[in-house]
Amino acid sequence: MSDELKKGLEDVLVAESDLSFIDGDAGKLVYCGYAIEDLARTASYEEVLYLLWHGDLPTRSELDAFRADMASHREIDDDVLALVENLAAADADPMAALRTAASALSAHDDTAGGSDPDDARESGKRITAKLPTIVAAFTRLRNGDDVVAPRDDLGHAANFLYMLNGEAPDDVLADVFDQALVLHADHGLNASTFSGMVTASTLADVHAAVTSAIGTLSGSLHGGANANVMRMLKEVDDSDKDPLSWVQDALANGERVMGFGHRVYNVKDPRAHILSERSEELGAAAGDTKWYEMSVAIEDYMADEKGLAPNVDFYSASTYYQMGIPVDIYTPIFAMSRVGGWVGHVLEQYDDNRLIRPRARYVGAEDRDSTPLDER
Amino acid sequence: MSDELKKGLEDVLVAESDLSFIDGDAGKLVYCGYAIEDLARTASYEEVLYLLWHGDLPTRSELDAFRADMASHREIDDDVLALVENLAAADADPMAALRTAASALSAHDDTAGGSDPDDARESGKRITAKLPTIVAAFTRLRNGDDVVAPRDDLGHAANFLYMLNGEAPDDVLADVFDQALVLHADHGLNASTFSGMVTASTLADVHAAVTSAIGTLSGSLHGGANANVMRMLKEVDDSDKDPLSWVQDALANGERVMGFGHRVYNVKDPRAHILSERSEELGAAAGDTKWYEMSVAIEDYMADEKGLAPNVDFYSASTYYQMGIPVDIYTPIFAMSRVGGWVGHVLEQYDDNRLIRPRARYVGAEDRDSTPLDER
Ligand SMILES: CC(C)(COP(=O)(O)OP(=O)(O)OC[C@H]1O[C@@H](n2cnc3c(N)ncnc32)[C@H](O)[C@@H]1OP(=O)(O)O)[C@@H](O)C(=O)NCCC(=O)NCCS
Ligand SMILES: CC(C)(COP(=O)(O)OP(=O)(O)OC[C@H]1O[C@@H](n2cnc3c(N)ncnc32)[C@H](O)[C@@H]1OP(=O)(O)O)[C@@H](O)C(=O)NCCC(=O)NCCS
Repeated sequence: MSDELKKGLEDVLVAESDLSFIDGDAGKLVYCGYAIEDLARTASYEEVLYLLWHGDLPTRSELDAFRADMASHREIDDDVLALVENLAAADADPMAALRTAASALSAHDDTAGGSDPDDARESGKRITAKLPTIVAAFTRLRNGDDVVAPRDDLGHAANFLYMLNGEAPDDVLADVFDQALVLHADHGLNASTFSGMVTASTLADVHAAVTSAIGTLSGSLHGGANANVMRMLKEVDDSDKDPLSWVQDALANGERVMGFGHRVYNVKDPRAHILSERSEELGAAAGDTKWYEMSVAIEDYMADEKGLAPNVDFYSASTYYQMGIPVDIYTPIFAMSRVGGWVGHVLEQYDDNRLIRPRARYVGAEDRDSTPLDER
Repeated sequence: MSDELKKGLEDVLVAESDLSFIDGDAGKLVYCGYAIEDLARTASYEEVLYLLWHGDLPTRSELDAFRADMASHREIDDDVLALVENLAAADADPMAALRTAASALSAHDDTAGGSDPDDARESGKRITAKLPTIVAAFTRLRNGDDVVAPRDDLGHAANFLYMLNGEAPDDVLADVFDQALVLHADHGLNASTFSGMVTASTLADVHAAVTSAIGTLSGSLHGGANANVMRMLKEVDDSDKDPLSWVQDALANGERVMGFGHRVYNVKDPRAHILSERSEELGAAAGDTKWYEMSVAIEDYMADEKGLAPNVDFYSASTYYQMGIPVDIYTPIFAMSRVGGWVGHVLEQYDDNRLIRPRARYVGAEDRDSTPLDER
C-alpha cells in the first residue's frame, strides 16, 4: 500500500474507456474519436447516445429504429406519475425529485435488477427516454399545470420542450436545446459518472447507478453550478453594483464564482465556446444581449484576476434562461443529457468489472477500552 | 499524471478518517479506537451511532437524550408511506424500494439540501431513525399486513423487530439483532460508503449520499451477498448433494461462493467470528443446528480448497434466517445499520472536502470525421 493520500483522486486512472477523451491543456473534448465541435454541428442527441452505447454513429436506418424505440419508452407508469405529483406538491427540490422518480422506475422495468449487458443497455435506454417526461411533468405540476403527454413524432430534445411548455418549439429552440444535450452527454469520469461506476462495481443495476449519479450531479461543485450561475447573474442584475465589483466582492469573501474552474481543463472549456455563441445568438434574436454581455465581462475579469476560465455551466445558464426555462431545472436538464454517459460508463464497468473499494488512512483514537455506560 | 491503472482502487488512500480501522492480516476491526469485539459485547447500536457521529461513546444522559431524539424521528410522512405502499404493490425489489423511499425523505426534511455540518448531522440522524420504519412497512405491506407504527419506548433494534412482526421481540432476539447492527455499522471505505462520499464531494446533501450508498450496497459483490448466502444454503438443503460437493460444483462452474473473500481481510473477518456464535446459539436454542453446521462445513471447505475465509455476510445469513426474517430483507437490514457509517464518512467529507474526480485512460477510436447521416 502506497502511503500517499489521493484526496480527490486527481489524475488517478481508475478505468480504461472508449467513450470520451479530454485534453485539458488544449481545451479539446472528443467522444469516441469525434471532436465535440464536429458532433455539435452535425449530430443530434440521439445519434450521440447511439455512439456512446454502440461505439459508432448510426446509419439512417439504425437511427430511425433507435429513435422509434426510444420514443416508445417515453411514457412513465401511473405510480411514478403519482410520485412526481406528490413531490411537486411537497415542493421538492427538482434534483431530489428527479433522483427519487428515476429510482422508482426500476419497480416497473423488467430489465432492472442485474448486470447482464443486454438488460443493462435496455434499462439505460428506457431510463434515458423517461427522464425528460419526469422533469417536464414535475415542472408543470408544481405550477398547477396539467401534465403534457410525450409525442413520439418529435425528437428527444423537441419533445422535452413540447412537454415542458405545452407547445412544440420552433426549429431554432429545438436545435439549440438538442445541441446543449449533445454537449453535456459525456465527460470522462466526472464525479457523477464515477459515482455510478462505483455503484455498478458491486454489480448493482443501472437504475441504482443512475440514481447515484443524479444525486452526485446535484451538488453545487458539479451540475448544480449551472443554476447557481444564473442565480448569480440575476443577483448581479438586481444589485446596484456593476458585474466586476460584484465578482470582486464575492472573491474577496472567499466565495467560488460558479461556472469557473475545472479539475481537468486548464483553459476555456470547448463546450463553453459553443454555448457562448448560442447565448449571444439568442440574445441578439430577442434584441437584448445583456446576459451575454454580463457573462463576457465576468469571463474576462476572472481570466485576468484569477486565471480561471469558464466551464460548460457558465454559458449554458444564460442560454437556458433566454429559452425561458425555469432556473432550477437547469441541473435536471444536465442529468437528462449526461445519463447517456452514465449508462455508457456503467456498461464499460460491467464489461470488465472489479469492485471499486479504496482505503482511508486511519487517524482516529487508538486502543480505547469501553467503559460500561454508567461509569462514563 | 501517473500512468498506472488503479482499477478497483485497491489499497489507494482517498481520505483520512477517525472512524474505523481494519487490519486485514490480523483480522482486526476497530471503531474510533474500540475493538469491535468489545463494542459488540458492551454497546448498543445507538451508542455506536453516537460514537461514529460524535467521536466518543455517550454518557448515560447523552445517550438518553440521543435515544429519545432518534425515537422522535421514526415516523415517516404520509407521502413516503404511500410511496412504500405503491412499491410493495408493484413487488419492487426491497433494496430498490428502500433506495426510492429513502430518496423521497428529503422532500419532507427541512435540514435537507446542503452541506452545512449541523444540518447534515441532523439529516443523517433523521434518515437513520426512519430506515427501519420503511423496511418494516414495505415488508408488511407486500404481505398484505397492516403497517405497525413505531414505538418510542423501544430501542432502535427492538423497535424494528416490533414493527416487522407486530410484537415486541424477547430479549435474546433484541440483543442478537442489536449486536448485528453494531457489527455492520462501519467498515472503512467499502464501496457503498465510498459512493456516498463521491456524492457528497460535489456538496450534494446527505440524502443524496445515502441514496447512492443504498444503491451501491445492493450489488451482489457487496451487501447483496448476505441474502445470496441464505439462498445458497437453502439450495444446498433442497438439493440431493452434500454441501461440499455443491460448493465444489459451483467453484468448478467458475461461480463465486457468496459470503467468502474480501478486499481487505486476508483472514477470517472478526465480525464473522461473532456472528457464527450467534448462529450456533440460535440453532441450539431451537434444537436444530443444521444451518450452522452446514455453514461451518462450507467454511472449512473454502479454507482448504480456496484459502478463502468467510466475511460478515456468511454467518449473518443463518443468524437472520433463524430469527425468522425474510431472506430478501437481509440487505435492507445491512443498510439500516451501515447508514451510521455512511453518515459519519459523509460528515468527514464535508469537513475537509475536495471534489472526487478521477480520470480514465482513453483507449477508444482516434480522429474520426463525422460523416453526414445519409452518407454513413
Ligand atoms: C470545478 C471545481 C470544483 C474544480 O475544483 P478542483 O479541481 O477540486 O480545484 P480546487 O477546488 O482544488 O481549486 C483550485 C484553486 O482554484 C480556486 N478555484 C477553483 N474554482 C474556483 C472558482 N470557481 N472561483 C474561485 N476560485 C476557484 C480554488 O479556490 C483553489 O484555490 P486555492 O488553491 O487558493 O484554494 C472548482 O473549480 C469549482 O468549485 N468551480 C465552481 C463550481 C463549478 O462551476 N462547477 C462546475 C464544474 S463543470
Ligand atoms: C468481496 C469480493 C468482491 C472482493 O473481491 P476483490 O478484492 O475484488 O477480489 P477479486 O474479485 O479480484 O478476487 C480475487 C481472487 O479470489 C477469487 N475469489 C474471491 N472471492 C471469491 C469467492 N467468494 N468465491 C470464489 N472465488 C473468489 C476470485 O475469483 C479471484 O480469483 P482469480 O484471481 O483466480 O480470478 C470477492 O471476494 C467476492 O466476490 N466475494 C463474494 C461476494 C461477497 O461475499 N461479498 C460480500 C463482501 S463483505
